[in-house]
Amino acid sequence: MKLQEIERAVEALQTKLSTDQITLNETVRELHGRDESYHAQKLPDIVVFPATTKDVVNIMEISKSLHVPIIPFGLGSSLEGHVIPDNGGITIDFSQMNQVLEVLEHDFLVKVQPGVTRTQLNKELKKYGLFFPVDPGADATLGGMAATNASGTTSVKYGVMRDQVRDLEVVLADGTVIHTGNKAAKSSSGLHLNGLFTGSEGTLGCFTELTLKVYGIPEHVSAARASFPSVKDAVEAVVSILQAGIPIARVELVDEVSIRQVNLFSETDYAEKPTLFLEFHGNEAGLKQDIAFMNEIVEGHNCESIEFETDNAGRNRLWEARHNLAYAFIHGNPGKKMMVTDVCLPISELAGAVADAREKVFALGMVGGIVGHVGDGNFHVLLMMDMNDPEEVAKAQLLNEQIVLYALERGGTCTGEHGVGIGKQKYQQQEHGAALLVMERIKQALDPDNRLNPNKLIKQETRGAVQ
Amino acid sequence: MKLQEIERAVEALQTKLSTDQITLNETVRELHGRDESYHAQKLPDIVVFPATTKDVVNIMEISKSLHVPIIPFGLGSSLEGHVIPDNGGITIDFSQMNQVLEVLEHDFLVKVQPGVTRTQLNKELKKYGLFFPVDPGADATLGGMAATNASGTTSVKYGVMRDQVRDLEVVLADGTVIHTGNKAAKSSSGLHLNGLFTGSEGTLGCFTELTLKVYGIPEHVSAARASFPSVKDAVEAVVSILQAGIPIARVELVDEVSIRQVNLFSETDYAEKPTLFLEFHGNEAGLKQDIAFMNEIVEGHNCESIEFETDNAGRNRLWEARHNLAYAFIHGNPGKKMMVTDVCLPISELAGAVADAREKVFALGMVGGIVGHVGDGNFHVLLMMDMNDPEEVAKAQLLNEQIVLYALERGGTCTGEHGVGIGKQKYQQQEHGAALLVMERIKQALDPDNRLNPNKLIKQETRGAVQ
Repeated sequence: MKLQEIERAVEALQTKLSTDQITLNETVRELHGRDESYHAQKLPDIVVFPATTKDVVNIMEISKSLHVPIIPFGLGSSLEGHVIPDNGGITIDFSQMNQVLEVLEHDFLVKVQPGVTRTQLNKELKKYGLFFPVDPGADATLGGMAATNASGTTSVKYGVMRDQVRDLEVVLADGTVIHTGNKAAKSSSGLHLNGLFTGSEGTLGCFTELTLKVYGIPEHVSAARASFPSVKDAVEAVVSILQAGIPIARVELVDEVSIRQVNLFSETDYAEKPTLFLEFHGNEAGLKQDIAFMNEIVEGHNCESIEFETDNAGRNRLWEARHNLAYAFIHGNPGKKMMVTDVCLPISELAGAVADAREKVFALGMVGGIVGHVGDGNFHVLLMMDMNDPEEVAKAQLLNEQIVLYALERGGTCTGEHGVGIGKQKYQQQEHGAALLVMERIKQALDPDNRLNPNKLIKQETRGAVQ
Repeated sequence: MKLQEIERAVEALQTKLSTDQITLNETVRELHGRDESYHAQKLPDIVVFPATTKDVVNIMEISKSLHVPIIPFGLGSSLEGHVIPDNGGITIDFSQMNQVLEVLEHDFLVKVQPGVTRTQLNKELKKYGLFFPVDPGADATLGGMAATNASGTTSVKYGVMRDQVRDLEVVLADGTVIHTGNKAAKSSSGLHLNGLFTGSEGTLGCFTELTLKVYGIPEHVSAARASFPSVKDAVEAVVSILQAGIPIARVELVDEVSIRQVNLFSETDYAEKPTLFLEFHGNEAGLKQDIAFMNEIVEGHNCESIEFETDNAGRNRLWEARHNLAYAFIHGNPGKKMMVTDVCLPISELAGAVADAREKVFALGMVGGIVGHVGDGNFHVLLMMDMNDPEEVAKAQLLNEQIVLYALERGGTCTGEHGVGIGKQKYQQQEHGAALLVMERIKQALDPDNRLNPNKLIKQETRGAVQ
């Protein structure tokens, strides 16, 4: 934005918000100009901190009258540059809208503001014997998680973010406030706006309230670590467990390179072999039978060792090790940035895809671990690269592209859970074909000025083609 | 359509389809002018029977160039007039596109044409040890079930139709063919078109292929019938079972009036009391523990008797009795038509809503049974009315409206699973508020001529208001 435009916008904002809700401070703008990805930093011109839905409506109306872009911001833990302003504008930071508004325990629902984080919510829910299952690793905000349709380790049992959304309060581009759903468990009334807005990455509106499904904390939980001679054996074991109808609550593949990094960082001494981290929820008798059956299955897939953790502390240690993996790589490779690939394939294609990616990382001589939410067919290569080494960056980008194309050719998707943001736009045409035009028409219908997180998810150049 | 327009359309269709794929026959048109609801019959002008996606594209292109409405038709088992042409046009009957195209057993997916029925699919899947869970009662086509976001007895465990849709091949209003998804278990790529098109009731496009999730046939199944002194006790028992985390696969409430009708029709001798029909899926040991726990819970809610059916034949008898209920009422009330209400509420509001509805039916002196997918908060009043008795029709309509308003005032929806069609349009404004404008804009963006199943789901009058 030009200086004059910024001044005019601040002036307008000051008529509606208090002074401490508006800032031009460079440090604050810098914090809002990046996320946890390798994508280049770009600053917003203004950062605002609404406290209410009405504040957001006022900001949106000013954005409309002055033609200023709006970028919604949770905690900046996105992985594809979702919160990085394309070309300046107003970043709306939702950190002051961080109240758990209502726990409807008998309806298994909770109503929250968008700035509530996942661990904050779970702390509150624990009082009611409830929990919120979606766990993307980072302690992201629920608004951000809904915006990217986040998922993670538990989605094999509980589903992804979109499956939890019962209602969103959304401020549209023109300042209108809508509700996308209701409190009923199912509905065949009208078009499915819950699903459309979840995963829309701030391009169709700003979320100001979310009503989400929650679950009873399971009676019994059992966790295990199982190591295998090869990634292929590990993945095939998971497929067999799923086919046997054993209800896994979590299953994570961590390859040998990643286990080594975990051991270095978390001071564990796990066998440096492709390993499955597993968790089962259920009643005591049922779990016992499931686990006995599972033991037989993994044995048939050359499992070399399996260790169980049934107490809380042991389970927490196990999942902490898994969650700390990204930090372990970053910590172990100072000065490098991480690129995280994120394809998801039909489960029958997963073993081949992971093996292919592993080979390619080795062939390029790069540092990179592979982890996967293998129950869903989703895996990540955590690739370390020196951003000052153009050759290394080019190699990482080539690898990412090869992994995406491998998935798309086999009926998969370029992003299982991180979203499109900036990084995956170039694959949208190939993945969606003519359906991309439908998405573009919807964007145009709901944000005709292209002010909402412009050039994320859907690129403006492509939109120009729609008539 | 005027005679001349019909002639011109038939002429155009004849250049693309064979003669036996096009008919003006009045009997055939009559069959396509009604569904299983009480809504008044209206005939299409032409009925066509495509055999391929290309046929549908050709029909759509002709519809575009001649400005003729298109109404997709599965088997006509819809309950809110979805397939009844608003003002003539071409009905596309999908009965010739009825192939199960591919069973991807290792990916737990199946690819079908829209005319495949649910029992036809399950017959095929059984060969692979798989099944498709969504069970709306009627042997509907999968295309129709996706169009209305159908659900039924098993959705408490397996989810609704929308939860099963991985990909739809859709022919849009201009003849473009798109795919709304892929074969991966999850995706954060692009806007969620799977969810948007599922439940769109033929207003955004015609489905020509569906890729759906399927499930392993459970190892053990146990079914039970439990009777209670009151509907309130029965509903509260279900809430307690859900809160205890016992994974119910099906739970149906059948009230005393309905049990009497079942006994008359199915020659059973079930106690004429509010009764829960329950089913549990799992492994043997887990089921045993769940059922012991469940027994304790229902006892605490004054359960008067509980009977188990563990063998296949007994279970089938039990669910057949439940499924035949609508026919039992129709059979027992010759000459009358059935109106079926369909609200869904937050589970905490269900007991009150059912009791209120029961009282109102008695107060009006009408014949009507209540059944409910109570695990989801969804219930139906099956109301018999003589269409030649305007007073009775008015009473039924008033009751339907009162039940809808009760649900909307408590955070519910006017339709849990039947869809909007013609019958629930009048509640869309109250239920969705400003969100209805978003739906209207999407409809306008994707079907600017309003040719696709016009005046279903979204009314044209309302659309006129959008600018």
